[in-house]
Parts: sequence; structure tokens; C-alpha cells
Amino acid sequence: MALVNENHLKLPGNYLFAEIAKRVNAYKSEHPEAKIIRLGIGDVTRPLPQASIEAMHKAVDEMGHVETFQGYPEYEGYDFLIEKIIEVDYKKRGIKVERDEVFVSDGAKSDTANIQELFGVNNKIAVTDPVYPVYVDSNVMAGRTGALGSDGKWSNVVYLSCTAENNFIPELPKEKVDLIYLCFPNNPTGMTLTKEQLKAWVDYARKNKAIILFDSAYEAFIHEKDVPHSIYEVEGAREVAIEFRSFSKTAGFTGTRCAYTVIPKEVTAYTASGEACSLNRMWYRRQATKFNGVSYIVQRGAEAVYSEEGQQQVKELIGYYMENARIIREGLQSIGIQVFGGVNSPYIWLKTPKGMDSWAFFDKLLKEINVVGTPGVGFGPSGEGYFRLTAFGSRENTEEAVERFRTKLKI
Amino acid sequence: MALVNENHLKLPGNYLFAEIAKRVNAYKSEHPEAKIIRLGIGDVTRPLPQASIEAMHKAVDEMGHVETFQGYPEYEGYDFLIEKIIEVDYKKRGIKVERDEVFVSDGAKSDTANIQELFGVNNKIAVTDPVYPVYVDSNVMAGRTGALGSDGKWSNVVYLSCTAENNFIPELPKEKVDLIYLCFPNNPTGMTLTKEQLKAWVDYARKNKAIILFDSAYEAFIHEKDVPHSIYEVEGAREVAIEFRSFSKTAGFTGTRCAYTVIPKEVTAYTASGEACSLNRMWYRRQATKFNGVSYIVQRGAEAVYSEEGQQQVKELIGYYMENARIIREGLQSIGIQVFGGVNSPYIWLKTPKGMDSWAFFDKLLKEINVVGTPGVGFGPSGEGYFRLTAFGSRENTEEAVERFRTKLKI
Repeated sequence: MALVNENHLKLPGNYLFAEIAKRVNAYKSEHPEAKIIRLGIGDVTRPLPQASIEAMHKAVDEMGHVETFQGYPEYEGYDFLIEKIIEVDYKKRGIKVERDEVFVSDGAKSDTANIQELFGVNNKIAVTDPVYPVYVDSNVMAGRTGALGSDGKWSNVVYLSCTAENNFIPELPKEKVDLIYLCFPNNPTGMTLTKEQLKAWVDYARKNKAIILFDSAYEAFIHEKDVPHSIYEVEGAREVAIEFRSFSKTAGFTGTRCAYTVIPKEVTAYTASGEACSLNRMWYRRQATKFNGVSYIVQRGAEAVYSEEGQQQVKELIGYYMENARIIREGLQSIGIQVFGGVNSPYIWLKTPKGMDSWAFFDKLLKEINVVGTPGVGFGPSGEGYFRLTAFGSRENTEEAVERFRTKLKI
Repeated sequence: MALVNENHLKLPGNYLFAEIAKRVNAYKSEHPEAKIIRLGIGDVTRPLPQASIEAMHKAVDEMGHVETFQGYPEYEGYDFLIEKIIEVDYKKRGIKVERDEVFVSDGAKSDTANIQELFGVNNKIAVTDPVYPVYVDSNVMAGRTGALGSDGKWSNVVYLSCTAENNFIPELPKEKVDLIYLCFPNNPTGMTLTKEQLKAWVDYARKNKAIILFDSAYEAFIHEKDVPHSIYEVEGAREVAIEFRSFSKTAGFTGTRCAYTVIPKEVTAYTASGEACSLNRMWYRRQATKFNGVSYIVQRGAEAVYSEEGQQQVKELIGYYMENARIIREGLQSIGIQVFGGVNSPYIWLKTPKGMDSWAFFDKLLKEINVVGTPGVGFGPSGEGYFRLTAFGSRENTEEAVERFRTKLKI
């Protein structure tokens, strides 16, 4: 008799964005005339950089001729892309990353979800709270957590609370942890760490032989000088950190699908008997066994992001969204709402007025001003009383949403 | 201290195709003038169907304009593609498959490797022998096997021997198994099962509440009438079978990356306490948590395979490879080599002459006639004494290779 993986059954059925869709659809069926503005899900809306469009046209043509046709890609990505990644994202910032330390994939979601496969089931994980749900859910499925408590926390997981009280800077855990998920600029809070603050984590990991899983999907939005662009700017990080990057938010690739993961050869985990293993070679074997690489056409599109025109176009793309972020941030501040993020990040994290709970504020926004956002509690218990808006909408919708906040919302 | 998943460490370091590459490179460095013909790896060489090329150009253009830009795809695939899959691959053959039973992915390798995540670690797996290595390796990594024995078999895995003696038709296992991997037309043997033979497996699975993981990646190569195109042609299969399909070999998508998996809602596995669970919903949740869908551009390319022109172009593509298969098959038979497959499959599985072992024959072919194939033993112990050639080369190379077999090989 085939037995299911019962860890999967622990996951509650209702996913955050499904619940949002349900409430929005219910409202729409009662108010079909309402012009709803969605600033909820973190999906981009601007077209791809023209450089990527041109490169993909060329790649499609190549696939149509026997002389230039491309079969199975390399498991870890094409040299033409990896060389550009190393040159522009790392070498230009003075960071050493080698050719066989970069693994191109179809998305940072896949990579951040799959990376836990390299680790034994008995590792203790730590996540910031609030947090991107994939880190926790993928560990639930693997049996690395206990049960979900009525407080919204899984047992056997260390939650690092990030709230206005600690300026969204997670404190080092009091107990020992083995795998630490950090995402900065943070989703959902939009907040960042300085190099000094990040160094405390690298030092902790080195001391405790822990691994930092550093999700850097929003790196392109960093504008302030003291915010590190890569965890490898911190001394010693090559021994303990895996870094995830994505073209999704950088270049609008959410529907095109390309990302990469960096695993320095020094990053080490251990067998129960204390033998050191290089995670770099384990990940290569994992990818070679369970993945067949990213579409040639898509990798050519990603490569073009690094061309001179591509870099300029990406800068404009990011600039567009960051202007949206400024409009939301300043607009909300002007009516007395406390906001965080939105400076080095496309996410604006706001404190709900009058201590309203996250879902009550969601319903209020939907009904009073027809604006959809994401309830903070959906990202974890410490998100209660907070709310996420994103800067990925069109300028027109963003301005209209802020205008509605200013003129129609009854606070 | 971060602990590794020690199951990963059980996998031997040297992968089949890496060993082949090593031997070929060594030969080449000694004989730089040799014109080596590769009929080893199962990668295609013909360009994509023109219909797909045109569809992808259009999709690339759409990604370049704000009105037609596409963000995150649906986790399970776009309606436009799933509707075509159901219509052409199933409904036209009288098979019922519903909209929410098809899951589009980046490759059958990913799906056949990931599907085991839905099952508990204590299930007993059965594989045909020889076999595509991914089925076994993904289970090794998950801890569902014991150790690798000196006979090339993992303990706690049931090997279903397929050799000339049983005409490559696996016998039902004597002990109870829970998860059964079947691939027909088979990789590597190129052999098929009749509907009656496949029914024996469906009946076994229904009786024992086992699940059949049916890899149908080579379905497009079926030419004979009594060979089922889908396991769902067999009565009762909707209760016990998951089917994997791919555009890789059908339409030359190895470098473009698209596949799909069908999980009927009736397919059921159980908790330890006997509660029935629908694998369909579990897989949806797995994909929603760990995967973000397939590139819009690629899905448009796959959709075009189902257009009238696309179907005609695919037929020509398959016809080209099948003519190669005929040339190899008949050429080898003409010099007294016993060959199997190559009729409903792009793979020709040959018995090595004079009982030579697989690697000795590999070395002999490489040295005497500069032709590279794949040693049968690389696919499992029952592959010893066999050898795989593929029909995916160019016509010119295929003819030249057969000519060398005929005129230069000393048997």
C-alpha cells in the first residue's frame, strides 16, 4: 500500500493569496462596478528590458536552425550567463565568486524551497517573523518541523521577531540553530540590514557551524550606501552562506523564469560523525539528478540584462517602481500612517491604524477604497497589526490608490 | 551544527555520462584527428518545429509591451496549453482527463524526480532493470533505499529484470511493492508493452493499493497499433497511475524545457492509519510551494506543437529520427548483431557480440570505429552485455556510423 508523506498533510489548506482572492471575488460579485486596485501580490507589471527581448528573438531564431539549435543545457547554466553574473554582480563589487559556484535555475522560489534537501531532518531552522512562507513550508514538507500551534508558529522552528520595536532587525537566537533563513532587503517588511548587522549573523554562523540561507531577490532595489548588496561583502561569509538571486524583480522575469544561487566551495555542513562535506558539490549532484537546466532562450534573455543597454533599461525599470514606492510611502505618511520599507525595497510595510488587526484592515481597505493589499499576519504572527503594499503597480493605479487613501479612507 | 542529508552521500560520485565523457576525451587527446560520431546521449539535434518558433517570437514580443506583458504564470500551467494537451493527447484517443489533472512543468526529469516527495519514506519501490537512473537516485536521496551492493543494486529496491530472455517484459514482483516506475516505450531498451501486458500492472496496483509512475516521454515514437499511447487506455488506471509526458523528444524541446504530468483525482495513497489522500491535490500544493510555473514564452511554444502545422512538423521530426532508427537497426542486423527497440522508440538496444561486457564494447567501438554509445550496464545490472544507440543524430552521421559498423568493426 502506497503511503503518503504525512508531513505534507500538516500544511493548512488555505494559502494566503487564495484567501485574499476569495475575499476580493466575494466583494466583486456584490459590487461589480467597483474599480479595484491590487497592490497585494508581489508581481511586476512593466515589460521586459528591450535588450532581453532582442536577445530572446535571436535565441528563438537559433532554435529554428540545425546549425545553431541547442539541446540539453548545462545543469548549472551556460558559461555565457554565469560569466556575466560573476563579472557584474560580484567582481565589480570586489567579491570573489568562481565559475563553479554559480547555479542558474528557473526561480529563487525553487532554489530556496529545494536547498533544504541537502540537510538532515534533525537540523533546527530559524526564520525571521514575518517571513516569505516558502522557507517554512518546504521544511514542514520535509519533516523538519513539529506541529502548527494556535499562535501560528510551528514547533521546532525558531522565530526571530521583526517589528517596529526592534526596527525590524532580528536578534541572534538564544538557543543554537543550524539553518538560518535571512532575506534582505526583506520581504515582506522592505527593511534592510547594514553590513555590521549582517556581520553579527555571519559571526554567529561561523561560531556555531550554522548555514545562512541568504535570499537576495530584492538586491536591485538597494539605494542606500551602507546596505550590503551581497552577503559575501561580509568577511567569512564564504564559509557559511548560500546566496539566492533572481531576475524576477530585477528585470521583470516573473513570467520568464530565471534565477541563480551561489554556493562557495568553502560552505560546509557535517555528517553525524563530524565529517565535513562541501555543499557546493552536493548541490551540483542534486541539480544534475533532479533538474535539467534552464531554457536556452531564457538564459540568453538573462544574459542581455548585463549588457550596457540592459543595465540602463533595468535601472529605469527599478526607478519606475521606486518612484511608486516613494509615492505610497509619502502619501501614507501624509495621513499619519506609520510606514516602513520602500526605500531599498519595492515593499511598503505599514502599521495598521489604531491597532486594527491585519485582516480587519484588509477588509476595510477593500470595502472603503477598493484597494487590495496583503495582511501582515499572513507572513507570520509578528506581522499581525501590519500590512504590505507593493510598488509593482502602474503609476496611474499607484497614484489613484494613494489618492483614495488620502481622501476616502476613514481612519 | 548544520548536518547534511547523509542519504545524498550514498550516491557514487561518477555519473554514467561523466565516465563516458572522460573516456572519449582521453581518446581524443591521443587521436586528435579522429572523427568521432556520438550516438550516446539521448539529446535531439533537429531544430524546433517552425510553428513553435513563430509562437515564441510572438510571445517574446508580448513580453515587451505593457498591455500584453505576462507576470507569474499559473503554478499548474496556462489554460491555453492544458486545453490543447487534453484535446489532442487524450480526448482524441477517447481518454478522459480533466483541466485540474494536468500539471505543466519544466521537464519530465524534474517531475519524475520530485514525485517521490509525496510519499512516505517507508514505501517499497520497484524499477525495471535496466532503468533511467533518475527514478532510483531521487529515492536514494530521500532515504527510501538501503546501501548500494557490489551487484550494482540498492537494497530495499525491487529490480524487475528486463532482458532478451523475457523479451524485455517485466514480471510482476513476488513481494509487495508500493511505488512502481514504468517507462514505455522504454528508455534504454526501446521496447514496449501491449495494452494487455500493461493491464497486468494496473491490476496489480489496484489489488495492492500501489501507485504506478508511468513515464511516457517517448510516446510520440509509437507506430505499432497494439501499443497503448497512454496508461489511461487501460481500465482502472485512473485509480492508480500518474503519467509523465514531455515535449523534449516529441518536439525537440530538450533545450527549451517543457513537460507535463497527469494525476487523475482518483489516484489515492494512504496515511499510516489508513486514511485515503488524493495525490492530485497534494501535488498541486507541492508545486505551488516549490515551483513557480513555466516561462510564458515556452508554454506558447509548446501550445503551437498542437496546431495543425505543429502536428505536421512534429510528425516529420519524428519521421526523421525513426528513419535513423531503421538505418541503425537494419544495418546492425545485416552484420549479425542482435538488436531490440528502434520500432516504437528512438533507442536501439543491442546485445554485445560474443558476450562482451558493456564497457569493453564501448571501448572497442570508440577505438575501432570512433563511435560513441552508452554501455547498457550504466542503466542497471541487467543491462550488462547490452549497449544503447540513439536515433537522434544527423542522417549523415547515422549513415556513416552504420557504414563503419559494417566495414570496420572486427566482430
